[in-house]
Amino acid sequence: MLGYDFSQPELLQQALTHRSCKGRHNERLEFLGDAILSMVIAEALYQHFPNAKEGELTRMRASLVKGVTLAEIATELSIADYLRLGPGEMKSGGHRRESILADAFEAILGAIYLDAGLDVCKERILYWFSSRLQQITPQQQKDSKTRLQEYLQGRRLALPVYQVEHTEGEAHNQQFTVSCSIEGRAAVVASGSSRRKAEQDAAYKMLERIQDEH
Amino acid sequence: MLGYDFSQPELLQQALTHRSCKGRHNERLEFLGDAILSMVIAEALYQHFPNAKEGELTRMRASLVKGVTLAEIATELSIADYLRLGPGEMKSGGHRRESILADAFEAILGAIYLDAGLDVCKERILYWFSSRLQQITPQQQKDSKTRLQEYLQGRRLALPVYQVEHTEGEAHNQQFTVSCSIEGRAAVVASGSSRRKAEQDAAYKMLERIQDEH
Repeated sequence: MLGYDFSQPELLQQALTHRSCKGRHNERLEFLGDAILSMVIAEALYQHFPNAKEGELTRMRASLVKGVTLAEIATELSIADYLRLGPGEMKSGGHRRESILADAFEAILGAIYLDAGLDVCKERILYWFSSRLQQITPQQQKDSKTRLQEYLQGRRLALPVYQVEHTEGEAHNQQFTVSCSIEGRAAVVASGSSRRKAEQDAAYKMLERIQDEH
Repeated sequence: MLGYDFSQPELLQQALTHRSCKGRHNERLEFLGDAILSMVIAEALYQHFPNAKEGELTRMRASLVKGVTLAEIATELSIADYLRLGPGEMKSGGHRRESILADAFEAILGAIYLDAGLDVCKERILYWFSSRLQQITPQQQKDSKTRLQEYLQGRRLALPVYQVEHTEGEAHNQQFTVSCSIEGRAAVVASGSSRRKAEQDAAYKMLERIQDEH
């Protein structure tokens, strides 16, 4: 599935081993793979977009290397079928969890790098990201809060106000509910696993609502 | 000073040009150099510390690639003498500013990478970081808040409480004053340009005070 044969298969084994398992797990490889991925994507964007500004490059990279995207690629590569998880994670469906898939994908990159060097690893990364690299543009990457703010500023309207309405759950599993209000309009509410995510989602909903009206 | 001769000297020129100057400035090169630096340091730490955990590797890297450290290296290389700044930055002493020096250093790494490839760039990075890489250890990198918390937990004491006492200044130049309190002891207060920095500094002062008493 990876399009690569390991000469040290124990590296691949380690990359597929979650820390909930006994023995050598993939956290160190993930650290290495994450750095390699960031670098390869940074260079690809630098070359593909000679006129993009630094902020645009940064936003495009963040969008390409975020957990959701990596978990998508991990799913395309059927990584879930080969993950080794501890019994607790196994029961709770950990092999489908986004963060576990994304981490394993990064660990595999680290493993390929150690097994074969940068050029091979880079070739695999660019292959797996090729359609996403072709589709991405400097403009679309602005987050919803930025887009909402720019939309309002362009119409000389007051900036939105975000407010945490409530939080639930224990520290490691909290849900934040946030409202987004703009002048003369009912607030929208959104929830998420962090304040930032909930705010982004609220901004997204507000944008959709405003744009529907126009 | 860099120990490297550019075959495309215009790349070095660009790396030394701050965005306050007209023409091609160094922000895109800085984006590239930052990614290369992170990757090279990540690999060096991965290899030097085969038993360090992912969290320790992450902390060591953060300490090595933070702005203060990069500005120190930039100063060792006399980069300030060659910076090209716009008239406003020039007057306000921008060539001594930490962030401008750190950014120019990263941009130079990006320029060397484009001029000569990864191996040459990596060799320079490892040379410039060699003494810092030799001195760093997995333990010392914990931030002050973590160290204070562990100190208190080790003595079965309650956790510290941080509180923002006040903020001053406008949005782009705010100062946060934060107190750190632990049970049965007078609070300490510290200020900084972000809440996080002020909290770290307050924790540091509290640790110093407690440790002095023992």
